[in-house]
Amino acid sequence: MQSDKEHPEQTLPRIVIDAMGSDYGPEQIVAGIRLALETETHRIAKLFIAGNEAILNPILKQNGLSEHPLLEIIHTDQVIDMDEKPMQTLKHKKESSMFKAIDLIKQGQAEAVLSCGNTGSLMAGSTLKLRTIPGVTRPALASVIPTRTHRFILMDVGANPNSTAQNLVHNAILGSHFAKAVLKIDSPRVGLLTIGTEEGKGNELVHKAHEILKQLTDIRLNYSGLIEGFDLFAGKVDVVVCDGFVGNILLKTCESLFLELKDFLKEQFSKNWLRRLGALASQGVFKTMREQFSPDKFSGAPLLGLNGWVFKSHGSSKAGAIAGAINMCLNCLDVYDLKTVVSDVAYANERINTIEEVHE
Amino acid sequence: MQSDKEHPEQTLPRIVIDAMGSDYGPEQIVAGIRLALETETHRIAKLFIAGNEAILNPILKQNGLSEHPLLEIIHTDQVIDMDEKPMQTLKHKKESSMFKAIDLIKQGQAEAVLSCGNTGSLMAGSTLKLRTIPGVTRPALASVIPTRTHRFILMDVGANPNSTAQNLVHNAILGSHFAKAVLKIDSPRVGLLTIGTEEGKGNELVHKAHEILKQLTDIRLNYSGLIEGFDLFAGKVDVVVCDGFVGNILLKTCESLFLELKDFLKEQFSKNWLRRLGALASQGVFKTMREQFSPDKFSGAPLLGLNGWVFKSHGSSKAGAIAGAINMCLNCLDVYDLKTVVSDVAYANERINTIEEVHE
Repeated sequence: MQSDKEHPEQTLPRIVIDAMGSDYGPEQIVAGIRLALETETHRIAKLFIAGNEAILNPILKQNGLSEHPLLEIIHTDQVIDMDEKPMQTLKHKKESSMFKAIDLIKQGQAEAVLSCGNTGSLMAGSTLKLRTIPGVTRPALASVIPTRTHRFILMDVGANPNSTAQNLVHNAILGSHFAKAVLKIDSPRVGLLTIGTEEGKGNELVHKAHEILKQLTDIRLNYSGLIEGFDLFAGKVDVVVCDGFVGNILLKTCESLFLELKDFLKEQFSKNWLRRLGALASQGVFKTMREQFSPDKFSGAPLLGLNGWVFKSHGSSKAGAIAGAINMCLNCLDVYDLKTVVSDVAYANERINTIEEVHE
Repeated sequence: MQSDKEHPEQTLPRIVIDAMGSDYGPEQIVAGIRLALETETHRIAKLFIAGNEAILNPILKQNGLSEHPLLEIIHTDQVIDMDEKPMQTLKHKKESSMFKAIDLIKQGQAEAVLSCGNTGSLMAGSTLKLRTIPGVTRPALASVIPTRTHRFILMDVGANPNSTAQNLVHNAILGSHFAKAVLKIDSPRVGLLTIGTEEGKGNELVHKAHEILKQLTDIRLNYSGLIEGFDLFAGKVDVVVCDGFVGNILLKTCESLFLELKDFLKEQFSKNWLRRLGALASQGVFKTMREQFSPDKFSGAPLLGLNGWVFKSHGSSKAGAIAGAINMCLNCLDVYDLKTVVSDVAYANERINTIEEVHE
């Protein structure tokens, strides 16, 4: 995001991959990089890999990437573990692959970071190092959720569990621009999640954010109004705005329910020979299910609202998911227009101030 | 719940069914009553049906229930519509079938109400008319959620979107006793829903409730601690405690996702003749799916914490769901021990006061 100002000559983006945070070790991450390079070489200026050189070199060799002109290892032997507390890592893991990766953006040497590591540390580290864009006080984590017929963006999925109405309004703006970039929708429909669409239902936070959002017509925010849980998978909106507490619980519960139903089908279809035969005849269904609901294609969750792109991938991401996250990152860097975002946020903040003055 | 004191001679419960609130009209409700009476006659002292006599009599006749000794119509021609605002109905619909049904409990003529009508009015009306039990300030709506292997209780699913820590603690107690009655579990495991089980994650509300719940060991509350969205369908706990804002969104989103996947399977399995053949061979899977995840058996959501039993059924409940709700209601009245609940709540409130004094 900073590239416009600091590197006017820089057109293609430079990305840093934290190679050390995955549950499966750096093997899957490097394999993901190989996959991405098969199709994306022309869209990348540089791909840094932050991690232990002694571990990475043999894996790069295995993948035929030792001499790849776009790749460069940023060596460090410090790693943040999954169960470490963010505040501890900020103090004691300054040389970790994750923080060294973020530092590259801070120093203007890269535009985006991708990490599968400790989410808390990634959020704390990047917020502290990169700071929020003008007008935004807290970043938000956005997740792309697949449905039968389309995809929608859920945010915030956990960066800010104590949102203010202003934070929710910023989430709407950040999410709308993100949907334009990643879902390729001209005018994404934005809904505010609550527990009943009649006026008066919900909570204080939602009422206040709803009042502000209704007034943001000038910045071409396509605000569809209040939505309920029923509406999420019914295709009513492209961006679902909620606070980080609700969003995180919702995301994890949906993942859990989806796996539950998958396991149920697997168990049921193998109960007797007739059913196994039925499953064989209809194996296309399961293939489509895997593809349609696969998180791989949109596996990077960006932390929006910072001076720089930070993508979080699941700790259990395999090569396909890593490649998908790199692709998603490139799509965002291509299209996401930071200047408009900053001016939209400034406009919203002005409206918020006016509304608050009226109420005083 | 009041029957112990006011009708010591009364052993079997008297139930009132609001016949007018269903999306399908009173036909499905009366059919549900017929189904329930096939097996439950020996467990009911009286079954009142609140609604329009002129409409109900022919339907009762069709169902062979005109002369049933347990049935009695409470006539009224006023009905609360689904889109009416609770505050308006409290003022202008005093003679509605729903409010007349609740009045029967207030007057000590019945122990439980079942309604498919307007949720807001049912909650507002019953809270106002029946009041909360000693020590509890806000009632909570509990829902039984089916999973592949078991069932769990989610509460609050929408009665109180602005919970305090004390409300959450009461929900844990009310939910634990409800689980004992309806899931027939001796010592239900109770979890508090948050966004990360490490200490320090989550929000203020959760931290405070967690601190209190950890200290409630004397009342035999089997508190399992903090849980995440991932844990809901993984069978970790029997009661999931959260505030009404989160719970309502969660319940509706899960329903929406489940329907989405059902529609997906239906669509996919009819795409070509081979898949249709596969579906035919494995039709047992779909039958089990319908049965296992059917809401019918546990379709009544009780509003817990009131001086009387109020059950809300889905507006779209058909006969099977109505019969299931009546059965659930009888199970609760059989087992749920109000005296212990009140004494547990009193104990919890004392602990809360002690904790707050220490913090002051």
